[in-house]
Amino acid sequence: MMLVDTLVERIAACKAPVVVGLDPVIESIPDAYFADYDDSLEGVSAAIYDFNKDVIDAIEGLVPAVKPQIAFYEMFGSAGIASFEKTARYAKAKGFVVVEDGKRNDIGNTARAYAQGHLGKVRLNRKEVSSPFNLDFLTVSPFLGEESLEPFIHVCREYDKGIFILVRTSNPGNRMVQDAKSSEGKTVSEALASYIDTQARLYTGASGYSSIGAVVGATYPREAAALRQAMQTSVFLVPGYGAQGGGAQDVVPCFNEDGLGAIVNSSRGILYSYLAPYGKGCSKTQYRQSVTQATQVMQREIYAALRAHYPKMIY
Amino acid sequence: MMLVDTLVERIAACKAPVVVGLDPVIESIPDAYFADYDDSLEGVSAAIYDFNKDVIDAIEGLVPAVKPQIAFYEMFGSAGIASFEKTARYAKAKGFVVVEDGKRNDIGNTARAYAQGHLGKVRLNRKEVSSPFNLDFLTVSPFLGEESLEPFIHVCREYDKGIFILVRTSNPGNRMVQDAKSSEGKTVSEALASYIDTQARLYTGASGYSSIGAVVGATYPREAAALRQAMQTSVFLVPGYGAQGGGAQDVVPCFNEDGLGAIVNSSRGILYSYLAPYGKGCSKTQYRQSVTQATQVMQREIYAALRAHYPKMIY
Repeated sequence: MMLVDTLVERIAACKAPVVVGLDPVIESIPDAYFADYDDSLEGVSAAIYDFNKDVIDAIEGLVPAVKPQIAFYEMFGSAGIASFEKTARYAKAKGFVVVEDGKRNDIGNTARAYAQGHLGKVRLNRKEVSSPFNLDFLTVSPFLGEESLEPFIHVCREYDKGIFILVRTSNPGNRMVQDAKSSEGKTVSEALASYIDTQARLYTGASGYSSIGAVVGATYPREAAALRQAMQTSVFLVPGYGAQGGGAQDVVPCFNEDGLGAIVNSSRGILYSYLAPYGKGCSKTQYRQSVTQATQVMQREIYAALRAHYPKMIY
Repeated sequence: MMLVDTLVERIAACKAPVVVGLDPVIESIPDAYFADYDDSLEGVSAAIYDFNKDVIDAIEGLVPAVKPQIAFYEMFGSAGIASFEKTARYAKAKGFVVVEDGKRNDIGNTARAYAQGHLGKVRLNRKEVSSPFNLDFLTVSPFLGEESLEPFIHVCREYDKGIFILVRTSNPGNRMVQDAKSSEGKTVSEALASYIDTQARLYTGASGYSSIGAVVGATYPREAAALRQAMQTSVFLVPGYGAQGGGAQDVVPCFNEDGLGAIVNSSRGILYSYLAPYGKGCSKTQYRQSVTQATQVMQREIYAALRAHYPKMIY
């Protein structure tokens, strides 16, 4: 079964086109997770892994995917990256699709190094091994143009992996670059959508969807509707829900009538919803319950909004 | 002394506005560097560090800066990142300015995590420490717009660090995004140049230059001349020399009349020039000599081209 079909199947099984962002912001994690460790790069990285395991346990069976944002691991250097690798492994062992938010981009053999390292295989001196990350999906920035995307797409096809190419990000300042127009009058977002659609149609699964996907923010519902039309087979990764201001109604246009075609991310809204009722002194048990509850609330909100708009949805 | 002034001083002392890219491509490294290690992620990462130390030793005193491309380390996971950290430390101890080519980009606290982790300080649980990378400069992609650049600029000003924002990359396919125009008729590159110029003028050193810099490819000399006019105080990082087709004449427009304002990168042209005469069986001594010679050739070519064009250059 292809990756994209696995994702679709799990979305339907959970009735949750939802991905939980694993963004370990040290200042916002309950104190309890640091109790066993010293204040070193290694200690904090170990605490982050314990924290992530509890989040993953708390959402098991509720959502199909998790999305670690590598910036929050990379900032602790090699110790942080080791924690990232362990987190990805733990999530995969629990059956989650793992989406790395890395927004990587480059050209030629550098782009290939990113693609192989995060998604594919890497050549050591005389042998080839699975990449140390071995993730399912990676977010990719397209600032260097189509030729910077090709090495990633090539690796997706070779190893049945996926990418979400930034097309319309959730932040207001995106317009400086993403609304600029080509001489043919297409915006950068539209030109990217057209390119992605072509690539996605060349690599679809039995579900009719493709793991050559796009990032489309929840904060611009009108653009999202047009982009949905322009990229019917691509899965959208939808940031901007919750803490960034997007609501359940806003994400509806990111979906097709079958209720598929997008996964909506929430990070802070789930990971740090515990702060208001409990504060940093929260116990680990309270913390896990809070994560479970916030995820269930998000699932219900999005599922209800989709049901109301798409009577033909298939789950 | 501010970072940008240190860079200017070293460029003048070496008569070399040149940065050597540390891009360890496994397939292209002499066999001798792998002899002591097994074919594991750790073994290959250790071999890369030995290789980098030899490159750094071979160019000591010849150029002011090195530019490790993190993709080629990150692909080996936490072991590769450990090798990256050691390489940066070794280069800094030898007096080089270290430029990380990472093309990172994001918004809000994620952008801040990248900036703090690569350039600034990171908060552990109860204390703050220097970032595990502690680099001088980082390349930054602007696909998410101005607000994605602000956290990086803020960290530059707080810790006296630098960034090179992608403005006009060296690859032909850049035009899809970088030539698109705003409703006021400015290309994305021009709009970015205007933003960078404003920010750079707010943060200049005694030399008159700023470490809020730009990436401007050697492969588009006409655009480079216009961008030089648009960003007079910014230092340019200039990729595309050598292997990518740019020659010494092509980089001239990236400089000001004082012969400053840019550093030209070469990676493959220096690191792998040994392959033609020696092949992979090359000894470490031959390898180091080959790196030294290729660097000297590049220095002479660029210095001569600048001398011929800019009689008022100050070194």
